[in-house]
Amino acid sequence: MPKVIAAFGEVMMRLQVPGYALLSQSNALNYSFSGTGVNVLAALVRLGHTGYLISRLPLGPLGDAAVAEIRKLGISTELVLRGGEYLGMYFLEQGFGGRPSRVTYTNRLESSFNRAPAKCYDYEQISKQADVIHFCGITLAMNEEVRWHMKTLAQAVKSRGGLVVFDANYRPALWGEDGHHKAKPHYEDMLELADIVLMNEKDALFILDLKSVETKREDQLADLMPRVAKQFHISVIAGTFRGINGDNSHSLQGFIWKNQSLVFSPTLTFPVYDRIGAGDAFASGVIHGELAGYSAEKIVQFAVTAGMLAHTIPGDSPTATETDVIRAMAPVIVDIER
Amino acid sequence: MPKVIAAFGEVMMRLQVPGYALLSQSNALNYSFSGTGVNVLAALVRLGHTGYLISRLPLGPLGDAAVAEIRKLGISTELVLRGGEYLGMYFLEQGFGGRPSRVTYTNRLESSFNRAPAKCYDYEQISKQADVIHFCGITLAMNEEVRWHMKTLAQAVKSRGGLVVFDANYRPALWGEDGHHKAKPHYEDMLELADIVLMNEKDALFILDLKSVETKREDQLADLMPRVAKQFHISVIAGTFRGINGDNSHSLQGFIWKNQSLVFSPTLTFPVYDRIGAGDAFASGVIHGELAGYSAEKIVQFAVTAGMLAHTIPGDSPTATETDVIRAMAPVIVDIER
Amino acid sequence: MPKVIAAFGEVMMRLQVPGYALLSQSNALNYSFSGTGVNVLAALVRLGHTGYLISRLPLGPLGDAAVAEIRKLGISTELVLRGGEYLGMYFLEQGFGGRPSRVTYTNRLESSFNRAPAKCYDYEQISKQADVIHFCGITLAMNEEVRWHMKTLAQAVKSRGGLVVFDANYRPALWGEDGHHKAKPHYEDMLELADIVLMNEKDALFILDLKSVETKREDQLADLMPRVAKQFHISVIAGTFRGINGDNSHSLQGFIWKNQSLVFSPTLTFPVYDRIGAGDAFASGVIHGELAGYSAEKIVQFAVTAGMLAHTIPGDSPTATETDVIRAMAPVIVDIER
Amino acid sequence: MPKVIAAFGEVMMRLQVPGYALLSQSNALNYSFSGTGVNVLAALVRLGHTGYLISRLPLGPLGDAAVAEIRKLGISTELVLRGGEYLGMYFLEQGFGGRPSRVTYTNRLESSFNRAPAKCYDYEQISKQADVIHFCGITLAMNEEVRWHMKTLAQAVKSRGGLVVFDANYRPALWGEDGHHKAKPHYEDMLELADIVLMNEKDALFILDLKSVETKREDQLADLMPRVAKQFHISVIAGTFRGINGDNSHSLQGFIWKNQSLVFSPTLTFPVYDRIGAGDAFASGVIHGELAGYSAEKIVQFAVTAGMLAHTIPGDSPTATETDVIRAMAPVIVDIER
Amino acid sequence: MPKVIAAFGEVMMRLQVPGYALLSQSNALNYSFSGTGVNVLAALVRLGHTGYLISRLPLGPLGDAAVAEIRKLGISTELVLRGGEYLGMYFLEQGFGGRPSRVTYTNRLESSFNRAPAKCYDYEQISKQADVIHFCGITLAMNEEVRWHMKTLAQAVKSRGGLVVFDANYRPALWGEDGHHKAKPHYEDMLELADIVLMNEKDALFILDLKSVETKREDQLADLMPRVAKQFHISVIAGTFRGINGDNSHSLQGFIWKNQSLVFSPTLTFPVYDRIGAGDAFASGVIHGELAGYSAEKIVQFAVTAGMLAHTIPGDSPTATETDVIRAMAPVIVDIER
Amino acid sequence: MPKVIAAFGEVMMRLQVPGYALLSQSNALNYSFSGTGVNVLAALVRLGHTGYLISRLPLGPLGDAAVAEIRKLGISTELVLRGGEYLGMYFLEQGFGGRPSRVTYTNRLESSFNRAPAKCYDYEQISKQADVIHFCGITLAMNEEVRWHMKTLAQAVKSRGGLVVFDANYRPALWGEDGHHKAKPHYEDMLELADIVLMNEKDALFILDLKSVETKREDQLADLMPRVAKQFHISVIAGTFRGINGDNSHSLQGFIWKNQSLVFSPTLTFPVYDRIGAGDAFASGVIHGELAGYSAEKIVQFAVTAGMLAHTIPGDSPTATETDVIRAMAPVIVDIER
Repeated sequence: MPKVIAAFGEVMMRLQVPGYALLSQSNALNYSFSGTGVNVLAALVRLGHTGYLISRLPLGPLGDAAVAEIRKLGISTELVLRGGEYLGMYFLEQGFGGRPSRVTYTNRLESSFNRAPAKCYDYEQISKQADVIHFCGITLAMNEEVRWHMKTLAQAVKSRGGLVVFDANYRPALWGEDGHHKAKPHYEDMLELADIVLMNEKDALFILDLKSVETKREDQLADLMPRVAKQFHISVIAGTFRGINGDNSHSLQGFIWKNQSLVFSPTLTFPVYDRIGAGDAFASGVIHGELAGYSAEKIVQFAVTAGMLAHTIPGDSPTATETDVIRAMAPVIVDIER
Repeated sequence: MPKVIAAFGEVMMRLQVPGYALLSQSNALNYSFSGTGVNVLAALVRLGHTGYLISRLPLGPLGDAAVAEIRKLGISTELVLRGGEYLGMYFLEQGFGGRPSRVTYTNRLESSFNRAPAKCYDYEQISKQADVIHFCGITLAMNEEVRWHMKTLAQAVKSRGGLVVFDANYRPALWGEDGHHKAKPHYEDMLELADIVLMNEKDALFILDLKSVETKREDQLADLMPRVAKQFHISVIAGTFRGINGDNSHSLQGFIWKNQSLVFSPTLTFPVYDRIGAGDAFASGVIHGELAGYSAEKIVQFAVTAGMLAHTIPGDSPTATETDVIRAMAPVIVDIER
Repeated sequence: MPKVIAAFGEVMMRLQVPGYALLSQSNALNYSFSGTGVNVLAALVRLGHTGYLISRLPLGPLGDAAVAEIRKLGISTELVLRGGEYLGMYFLEQGFGGRPSRVTYTNRLESSFNRAPAKCYDYEQISKQADVIHFCGITLAMNEEVRWHMKTLAQAVKSRGGLVVFDANYRPALWGEDGHHKAKPHYEDMLELADIVLMNEKDALFILDLKSVETKREDQLADLMPRVAKQFHISVIAGTFRGINGDNSHSLQGFIWKNQSLVFSPTLTFPVYDRIGAGDAFASGVIHGELAGYSAEKIVQFAVTAGMLAHTIPGDSPTATETDVIRAMAPVIVDIER
Repeated sequence: MPKVIAAFGEVMMRLQVPGYALLSQSNALNYSFSGTGVNVLAALVRLGHTGYLISRLPLGPLGDAAVAEIRKLGISTELVLRGGEYLGMYFLEQGFGGRPSRVTYTNRLESSFNRAPAKCYDYEQISKQADVIHFCGITLAMNEEVRWHMKTLAQAVKSRGGLVVFDANYRPALWGEDGHHKAKPHYEDMLELADIVLMNEKDALFILDLKSVETKREDQLADLMPRVAKQFHISVIAGTFRGINGDNSHSLQGFIWKNQSLVFSPTLTFPVYDRIGAGDAFASGVIHGELAGYSAEKIVQFAVTAGMLAHTIPGDSPTATETDVIRAMAPVIVDIER
Repeated sequence: MPKVIAAFGEVMMRLQVPGYALLSQSNALNYSFSGTGVNVLAALVRLGHTGYLISRLPLGPLGDAAVAEIRKLGISTELVLRGGEYLGMYFLEQGFGGRPSRVTYTNRLESSFNRAPAKCYDYEQISKQADVIHFCGITLAMNEEVRWHMKTLAQAVKSRGGLVVFDANYRPALWGEDGHHKAKPHYEDMLELADIVLMNEKDALFILDLKSVETKREDQLADLMPRVAKQFHISVIAGTFRGINGDNSHSLQGFIWKNQSLVFSPTLTFPVYDRIGAGDAFASGVIHGELAGYSAEKIVQFAVTAGMLAHTIPGDSPTATETDVIRAMAPVIVDIER
Repeated sequence: MPKVIAAFGEVMMRLQVPGYALLSQSNALNYSFSGTGVNVLAALVRLGHTGYLISRLPLGPLGDAAVAEIRKLGISTELVLRGGEYLGMYFLEQGFGGRPSRVTYTNRLESSFNRAPAKCYDYEQISKQADVIHFCGITLAMNEEVRWHMKTLAQAVKSRGGLVVFDANYRPALWGEDGHHKAKPHYEDMLELADIVLMNEKDALFILDLKSVETKREDQLADLMPRVAKQFHISVIAGTFRGINGDNSHSLQGFIWKNQSLVFSPTLTFPVYDRIGAGDAFASGVIHGELAGYSAEKIVQFAVTAGMLAHTIPGDSPTATETDVIRAMAPVIVDIER
């Protein structure tokens, strides 16, 4: 049953101030390398699949370190190109209670990935190897060239019968003013190509510019998801509602539209250790559930639990095995595994 | 609108065992330099004002390090004298849940600040520069000479039309046996000079020896604060009630007596990361609110929120900007600022 | 009133990944040396008694480091033999929220302690010195030779009028398949020798193979503890119920069977910092309470509070003094001790 | 005698792997903020002068942290503008013995400093305040706009009678192919404006394209420095020869051309702890010596000793006081200062 | 030209006290995973080849962490089996000056690798994939089963025309009393199978029990290496002389017997940062030189320089690329690579 | 042969900036507890003797931590009194190359030890237990009360036939102006009581005010030591000459006057990791050599080698065993002990 999953996306260096200090209070950082593609693959590798990253990294010590860590996560770097000059980075100051986390980016537009030359990836080869390929809306926001790589890859895999996964992941800051309008045609292109989509009712309302008479989120979902699925021929749409409590805990509920019905997971409430990457854990749970042939109910519960566990581990990349997730779905909480 | 704030107070070296270990379990310390004056100025500088510390630090590496950190906090050290031999220090073992934090002091009576020679500060110059000057009851407990500097400075600033702020901050251990009696005349002197006072009903009952027939804290406040304000011609009195929960969370409610009415803030309950210095954040919020012309309601909510945020950040010195505080006053909690 | 307590048990090296990372994510470990005997003695020394460890450690740097730390805890190492080759170790990955902690052992069967030669301890001398001697069911699981040392020591102390304490501490992984049957005769031997026993209703049901018609835990306790006490002539039986909440908090309730009555402590709910060793803190509280002549009610409340405090401190070895425990039993929570 | 020194230059974030590991081996970084201007000012402030940095930093956490550290170094940030988006960064992997250190830059062309808008600095105001202004050849390599700021500032200060210091600091990687030709006119412009120049015979040969029949470095210096000084009306030219030994030690000899004579310092050989910034310490020593009216012999010995001491301290920014340097010039080595 | 190299050997966890403290002084460790096979492969991967480790690791967190790090080093773990219970470990206390480093092993006889069941490796498959296979005398010391795996693998690869490399690496402590006699037949078996051998004159004298009338090491080598090469049909024998100086520096000279002549490298003297694994770097240099068709002179200089560089980097596993080694062979020392 | 050694002296907290940073550059400290008495006892315990510290420490966390560490060093704290308020402290900034280390003291005059009340130690009991008692000139500088304790203890031990050791350890800063004159009578008192003295020719010239016509240090020693020994009936006088090189290495030569002859050790030159406490290691070597009945030649070589080894280990307290020292006296340097 293990499948071959490819993911196309940028690798970023995450530079985190240890503990809960601000950059202006500390003099130390912990670093790791992540990105939506890396995170999704890391999660799926731990769930038993084989993962190939499709990306581009600079030569030199930073690129070497990124490759080393991606390999450490169990992801194949065979399809990672080396070249270009820079690596995107972000600085993370961890929030606490009522004080939010802060993320500060360096200039990622000049990164090796975002400056990858035309036709540099081996689209044909990749489409032969991959059972599934994953894309993310962050990549879509970068530039025309990157979007071309993205859509070409999606088409190549789709045309060979592979599954295309698209995570909407709309980041307003990346699209700038009037971003929804700029983004719309590109999102529509990706939705046309996608089999499994991670999105929610806000994406439908604001990016796709659909209208709904409903006002509650659940009702909007029930109204909009079927329409989106139908319009773009998408078999699975899934997403989460997140509630943020002031006591370092979050609440998370997943939903999935599949086989013409909308299923919700229970709402989990749990303490948060490291929030970044948890959305990618949810997406990986949905992909794994689909590949494993779980029921819609089990998929969404598995995915939301995988998402919850990703909040309990340092770093962006999820580490839970299938056993870990299944155990955490059970009502009894284990104290110490010996 | 930004004002020039001076604060007179001792700088102490804070030596904290990292994490939650005891001194007898660890071999490492993190250090920083703080003190009520430093904390209040650091907070007010982040809120947009200019801060001058009036203090005295030894020559040599410890004094150099203290000056460097105070400058780093954005506080001017132009009025800091150098000389004398020692620096006051305290060791902090962070508590957890039902285990309280422990603070152990070294001998601060021999510190440069507490041994500052007579008439060493430039009282005239300071009074010209400062719109506001801040004092604290801890300083009042030191010795006769320090009290002389304190009162002389307060008079000089007051006589030029500057605002005098006094934070009662009564510490029983510093006054020794029968401390309330010893402290009373000095507190009365400072209250005579003060425009804005941080205190609560216990200070009125025990230091000022006022009587109240009321038994509940709110009623005692309502009874006593107007009488104190009237007796000493104080325009603003503010303070907090703190509740300590066993789950690493605290509850905090602020009050303010102003324009003949007593206003309470909502009670905030929040997880605590670093408790020391939070009272100074509240005081800074009151001062900033006064200077910014906020309503009593807004002052006390701003101040208690600033106090809450100070519990979420390592170190004694608050770091919140006005934007940070205003956002935290809103009902929606932000997750990650990107 | 201070007594001389001996404890017989293995010293293990605890190697903990700092923070909440997994072994595959980190490159650093903190280490300390612990074990049920070490923990119980460390706790009792802090409560004012004198503690002697009876154990065996290898020559060389690891054994030296273990001896140094045990001495640091205030425990006498006079009765610790040196020889053999290895030290048992365990790796700890701290859990968070719904993710359990993981403990991974190295091969402890070859340890100096578990390979101690026949008759190597000075049973006579120990029995003269010790007012109380403590044993644990983990040791009982090791091998025939170790059990011989254990029972011989218990008999020697008992025959001189010393108190024998036995903590059932049944660990399924150590006894293997059909473990309860293998364990039963050895547990019975130790219960015959013991004056104070730490156990619960499950030990009675599964190890001692007693039957009960009751189905609720409290009722089973009330049914079984008197029968065990009577059968084995045990004067005190105590234990805890632990509830594990998903928010990094636990609930703990203690019970004690003494003077023909079963007394429960209040149920404490509290945040957990480091869970390992908390059971040993409870046991120490029971022993101290017995030695101090506390009432059954006070013993069990003292013990459960000592257990709670042990969750708030890094490392396996409790650090609370009698004052610390008594204060934590009071309803008012102290914030900062200055 | 203390003077007011301004320096115009970029602030960079230095991200150093702790110890001697590579980026692909570690997961931690120490960071600080430096740059030629910052380093020279930090050194001169410790030598008793007042330092103003002229630069531009982004808003947000990284810019805040940079400002905080520059203030901590005792440098005034009054003339530092805030705006733009990015901060230049470099990663440092410390070499050992025969393995060289490696520096990896991020994209600095998009930095706030290098994207500073036209006429943004207050050239007039700066020229009134500064007795001395310092520039560096690294800045000269950036872009036309930055060069305009640089030359305009130099002219403004020169026209008011201030001293202009220019450190040639030619970095081949920044000028690209045929860099010497591109650089020549800009270096000539700066030399025309400069009173004190840090350069050596290679700069004269390769950038200024002067010819010399000499082949030994000392002879080339003796031939070329007078010609450069004469051509550009420079009163002081100074520089160093560095020898790199394979045992973590370096050798350093300074020279100075002043009053028509070329003076060499003794050659110092010393162990190296942190090599970056040592050239700036030498430059600061020359500036301080000039301002203090030292003889040429004393200037060059003071400067090379300041340079040596800067190799013994972590970080780019020198920390030696005048007393420190003078003591290190003495033949007796002090062990411990108590 | 890049080749496929396999290496058969145990993976050990290295637990190092940070800095220069003893285990009894510290409470922290850094860990990594290494072993002769891992080190040789890590080095050869950095030199451009493909590396496959043949080993066996336990399931669970320690095995997962080992696999992750080996992958991070760029080595394929496809041929690594998972199973068994334990991982061999060693503790390292770094020496300084006249104080030697200390290594303390845990029980490795029970490790997954040393308890690998009969015929568990896919000898046929490995022999098809590998151009070269590497073995080490440490493995030879373990037990009969491991020796069987080792010789079977060597034969399989040899019979397919692959190169067999054997590093004598005689460790007296592993063979016990009269170890040379016990070891002799096994060393002879491996020498029969080997094409490239790492050994020196002492191995010939003491393990192979050859006699020489020479007394100086160089003369013994010249006498013995040809005889060993002839007797066992070995094409290349190489090794090093190490001199240990009291100032944290070592001296290293390499030799190689090839094409009937004995060639020595220059003697390098250099400061040592981390000595462990440097012999494996030398071996990798010899293998790479052979595969690259270098002359004997270049091979031995390349190898000894690779060995020198391995002393300058933390951890057991070499990190130098071919460019790094070639540059370090040049007489000019580079200071900072920018 | 193992003896019981007592030492009377203050325990200080050593607070060291990690690595080579200054206090104004860092925010972290490592701490330990030391003092001449602690160091000498730690060394002698490792050499096989039993050590009792005679001192006084405050109640509370700092005193607890000091006691814990002293116990960890293997020293008995049975004779350590608890009481008083403060603990002496010193901050250490480690020097590098030509930059000296800096030590900054806090106020130690108020320490528990220096404020110990009259007659607080059990002089009688101590004199019965101790074969040897050690004192140091630093203690002699404190105040009259401490000197009284010191001389009373020396007399008590001497009168029972115990050996009295006195280390002159003259620290100018502690005696203030005209210190030699103030110190003289007290040094004479201690020399009268002492059997083994650590001092050198400068102490004889400047404290004892003896005259010598010699000008070279060796000749002065040969002239003065016999006269001091004769005048005060001292059986052994020993000391060192230290040379400080600019490359982080020191040179050390020991001498001993015994049995009417002056013997010098070879001069050792070695790299220095942590210089503080090395004099105490030398003293311990002399004491151990005397107790072990070594020849004068062996004593001084053993002592100077013990001194050398103490420079290679972090912290003030020596860690070498007799085996370690003997091995380091041999000409062959060991690389790695496995």
